[in-house]
Amino acid sequence: MKIYLAGPDVFRPDVLAWAESARELCLRYGFKPLLPIDHGEDEPERIFQANIAMIRKAQIVVANLDPFRGSEPDSGTAFELGYALALGKKICGYVTRLDTLAKRVEIAHGQCALPAPGAPLTDGQGMLIENFNLPCNLMLAIPSHIVEGGLEACLQAIRARPAIA
Amino acid sequence: MKIYLAGPDVFRPDVLAWAESARELCLRYGFKPLLPIDHGEDEPERIFQANIAMIRKAQIVVANLDPFRGSEPDSGTAFELGYALALGKKICGYVTRLDTLAKRVEIAHGQCALPAPGAPLTDGQGMLIENFNLPCNLMLAIPSHIVEGGLEACLQAIRARPAIA
Repeated sequence: MKIYLAGPDVFRPDVLAWAESARELCLRYGFKPLLPIDHGEDEPERIFQANIAMIRKAQIVVANLDPFRGSEPDSGTAFELGYALALGKKICGYVTRLDTLAKRVEIAHGQCALPAPGAPLTDGQGMLIENFNLPCNLMLAIPSHIVEGGLEACLQAIRARPAIA
Repeated sequence: MKIYLAGPDVFRPDVLAWAESARELCLRYGFKPLLPIDHGEDEPERIFQANIAMIRKAQIVVANLDPFRGSEPDSGTAFELGYALALGKKICGYVTRLDTLAKRVEIAHGQCALPAPGAPLTDGQGMLIENFNLPCNLMLAIPSHIVEGGLEACLQAIRARPAIA
């Protein structure tokens, strides 16, 4: 079973150490890891094509859905989850804390206030905050199995309940 | 030709007026607009399924890729672009300004500094900033035709160069 690891971890300063640890975790749980840094491409068009090729090879995409540079998950990761789902892949995610989207907006921007009774929840720009008790945008949260914790918690969940993947 | 309009505009306080104007623009340029607010669903699972059904009906997805609650585009929008691309749909986007990702991080977080010669560009958390002169994450920027301006500029571009869609 091949797992493609999606997430902004490729931007970490310690990406090589992270990748080594992520590969080991996948192997320990019986999965073959596919990591975007492993294709070695460094030109945007080729990186794109190589990532897509890896997603196509995988049976499962596991995504780091923690907020990235704001209160939203990394957009490249979100794109990859959508791409994978359309191909019939299983999609899973992990977040450090299962905060609601409202809580994430508050943490990232200090912009979320309790609405008046009956009024919608909005951010500091007056933009509606989805208030469905989900950890991120429903387009990601509904089709993905999202666990609290890190990559290992997600791999454990997949092993414990193979039906989710 | 049916266009699905993706973007965080569904969260705007003036969403109904925005939708009316967006529908009119699409019709003026000869496209049939598919807007997520038009399916009328209000429960997350049903919203997800209805959005997906609309994307499947569309030939083109046009996305608002402006930064949303940070320096990244809306993650739901990114997910929808990925889903659409995997189904063979044409994907286009628009941004108010064709700033680079580095510039967006600087504007949103004040966190981007010119790197030392030969050093990578990073944000305030030490996370690498893709430095490919693209307006967003390469997974979105490479497969999408992205124009500067709003929805109308994007529709004009599609009409002027049908090959892009």
